[in-house]
Amino acid sequence: MSFEKINFKEKFSKFSEHWQPKVVANLNDYEIKLVKIKDDFVWHLHEETDEAFIVLEGQMHIEFEDRTVKLTKGEMLVVPKGTRHRPYAEQEAHIMIVEPKDIRNTGNIEDNLTAPNDEWV
Amino acid sequence: MSFEKINFKEKFSKFSEHWQPKVVANLNDYEIKLVKIKDDFVWHLHEETDEAFIVLEGQMHIEFEDRTVKLTKGEMLVVPKGTRHRPYAEQEAHIMIVEPKDIRNTGNIEDNLTAPNDEWV
Repeated sequence: MSFEKINFKEKFSKFSEHWQPKVVANLNDYEIKLVKIKDDFVWHLHEETDEAFIVLEGQMHIEFEDRTVKLTKGEMLVVPKGTRHRPYAEQEAHIMIVEPKDIRNTGNIEDNLTAPNDEWV
Repeated sequence: MSFEKINFKEKFSKFSEHWQPKVVANLNDYEIKLVKIKDDFVWHLHEETDEAFIVLEGQMHIEFEDRTVKLTKGEMLVVPKGTRHRPYAEQEAHIMIVEPKDIRNTGNIEDNLTAPNDEWV
């Protein structure tokens, strides 16, 4: 275990790809991840877990079947488990995700947006 | 479960006391909490869990037995379980905490800083 602090701006400067979450910390059997997002993600759901989205820079939308929530820097939303959703961002946004380890980013969907797990930055 | 987004500034405007974490969201059996801190907290440890501190406004220190880590807005640290630590802030700082439900804020210590659990804002 490290006592090194994590600086979000410094971590975001180290990668550029979109929709590929990078782990920055373990919290018991959970992970704290940073991800750059832009354009449309795929509709999906996570049968096994809630998922927290926290906007650190920019803004994003999370589309649900009956509504769309817009999140701006300084805002967050927990997507309840089993809920179909589609994140998207018109401009690049910087997001923190908190969820258990080993969760596939595209949930129940296998897609070309499916990203490898356990990539650290 | 709610699809209402959480705006940190709006939530922080609703309380003023220090060292009394307020829950803003559940994430499975974890909680996301906001807390205003100022001055010294008590030395303590959590036998059962890691604890994530994320600085949203201002700066804080976390003192360990052999070092002190300074965290500024946009930085975070996970305190490993079982590790004695003492948070403090010279000026008021606004912090997000992620940890399992039902964790006593003062860990192994019963103190006048021990705060009630499950207080929402």
